[in-house]
Amino acid sequence: MKIMTQYKDGNYAIEVARGILEDRIDDYTDKYDQVFYLADKNVYQLHKNGKLSFIEDPILMEQGEASKYFDAFSNLLETLLSSGVQRNCLLVVIGGGAAGDAGGFAAATVLRGVDYIHVPTTLLAHDSSIGGKTAINSRYGKNLIGAFHRPKGVIYDLDFLDTLPESEILSGFGEVIKHALLKDKDAVDALMDATKDGIELDVIEPFIIKGIETKMEHVLRDENESGIRKHLNLGHTLGHAIEYRYRMPHGIAVTLGIYAALYISNELNQEDTFDLAHFYEYFIGLGYPMEELKALDASDMISLMTKDKKNQTSGLVGYIVMEDAGRARFTEIDRQQLTKFINDMKESL
Amino acid sequence: MKIMTQYKDGNYAIEVARGILEDRIDDYTDKYDQVFYLADKNVYQLHKNGKLSFIEDPILMEQGEASKYFDAFSNLLETLLSSGVQRNCLLVVIGGGAAGDAGGFAAATVLRGVDYIHVPTTLLAHDSSIGGKTAINSRYGKNLIGAFHRPKGVIYDLDFLDTLPESEILSGFGEVIKHALLKDKDAVDALMDATKDGIELDVIEPFIIKGIETKMEHVLRDENESGIRKHLNLGHTLGHAIEYRYRMPHGIAVTLGIYAALYISNELNQEDTFDLAHFYEYFIGLGYPMEELKALDASDMISLMTKDKKNQTSGLVGYIVMEDAGRARFTEIDRQQLTKFINDMKESL
Repeated sequence: MKIMTQYKDGNYAIEVARGILEDRIDDYTDKYDQVFYLADKNVYQLHKNGKLSFIEDPILMEQGEASKYFDAFSNLLETLLSSGVQRNCLLVVIGGGAAGDAGGFAAATVLRGVDYIHVPTTLLAHDSSIGGKTAINSRYGKNLIGAFHRPKGVIYDLDFLDTLPESEILSGFGEVIKHALLKDKDAVDALMDATKDGIELDVIEPFIIKGIETKMEHVLRDENESGIRKHLNLGHTLGHAIEYRYRMPHGIAVTLGIYAALYISNELNQEDTFDLAHFYEYFIGLGYPMEELKALDASDMISLMTKDKKNQTSGLVGYIVMEDAGRARFTEIDRQQLTKFINDMKESL
Repeated sequence: MKIMTQYKDGNYAIEVARGILEDRIDDYTDKYDQVFYLADKNVYQLHKNGKLSFIEDPILMEQGEASKYFDAFSNLLETLLSSGVQRNCLLVVIGGGAAGDAGGFAAATVLRGVDYIHVPTTLLAHDSSIGGKTAINSRYGKNLIGAFHRPKGVIYDLDFLDTLPESEILSGFGEVIKHALLKDKDAVDALMDATKDGIELDVIEPFIIKGIETKMEHVLRDENESGIRKHLNLGHTLGHAIEYRYRMPHGIAVTLGIYAALYISNELNQEDTFDLAHFYEYFIGLGYPMEELKALDASDMISLMTKDKKNQTSGLVGYIVMEDAGRARFTEIDRQQLTKFINDMKESL
């Protein structure tokens, strides 16, 4: 399956299927005199005698999020430069979303910008394969330093997903759920039906592709992160706070955040737009730790959401809610009301 | 004097005159909710009770080139982020070319890009006020990490030049000479005539402006650093090697490199296109350390020019030479021939 981005210019192909890396890689690398493979350390370790055995001399990146800290990033750049990187080169970035972020930012900045492609190796990375955002982390938060720099292509070989631990599958699947919710009711129903007994990789392949397409629609209609692109934050406002406080994988925290967003949506819509019990059972069945929602401290969460150091008690919090599946909107919720929503949700569980 | 850049989009004004900072700054800052002043430590120290007294709470950058090392740069970003920088902000970068490079790169990358203006404080910075190049240094060389990110404006207040040390004036003036050579014979003659008794700031103001215009022409005709933009490297191939080996200010080393380029041009043209004795006397009169040329080790210089770790003795070296004033061209010179040119030049002095 091949998806072409639809920007005004600088488009690229996202190819999604099993076993495609070996077939497709040369089509990219053949165009360059110089190719560097940047691989997540852990991914390389897992696949160096298998799918990645064709790579000689990879530049290994710190595993996952660790690659996104300043020291790891400056080491990556210095390693590239010590290897004699030249402007007309291709970086092949192999790893999850973090590797894509850090490797993409290296491509954006080394010699003021070189080409790269991304070979995502996690389910979560389907989400970051679109959008052209690259970034590293600051002491003050994630993704605060970066650039917009689109890859020349994304080769999403689903074989890599076979070696993912359960928690990584659950984390990535959270974004698949989000994209279905942003798409429409049919997408949600089809996804929940297909996965009611668990997440089988071969079953969710079409949903991954649809998720990429939905994300692309949102990004295209709003390249600069105002308006509709904000809808992609569904579940993320509370999700980020949960992720930070409970050190939970991103997409798992987002899934908890999605449940809360559906609860709040019902409250704001003043009707049962979403069958909360059905969603709750479904999430529990898949293995999401929904019981953590009962432990949330509303005021702590809201402070984290608003990065509020003064612990104000009034003011508004930006939030993505749903009028229905496929109809998200941005709203601002008063802190006191949001506190009540979170507490009421906890009691309802 | 106001020069507008002539890009397809993203144009900005470069204003050059004495005493304009105080008049013009508000026109920029008024458009933003949030303004951060990033000032070279040394410049701020010199002017905090004078021209810069209106600034409260500047973010001080390391002096000059020291601001362009990774640690200084990451500190700068973290300071901005700890100050709560938001996307709709303006950074006002005050300092020479190095401050412009590092501050501009901070603007390019913090929150994936915010606006900035540059307030150059050196003569050399007239050169970097055009082109949109931002960068920091790697362990492996200068400007190897960066981005293209144009300022929203350049306020070039010549009052700052009054406090420059002599060596900084000579350094910046080297690029003024280069721009005259790239322009035409009239520009060279006028410049040499106006400065035959020394460099008076008020006399060279129109030449600074012409230099900016010449650089802009080169950049516009070739935004991607192939073709004509390369001509801006006149004097830089050898100049960078001299700068590195003798730790000489950039533009002073470039001036020595320009002399060598004129010598080599005469050799390649097989005629006395340039009156070398006249140039030599002129440069000596202004205070350039021309005698250093006599000490050059040709093979060391060529190794540095080509970043050649293997010390090959054959191969070609890219070089900018002049068919005449105003007619530069890129050529490749065989190492052996280049060695002979350098040695012959040394003997001719």
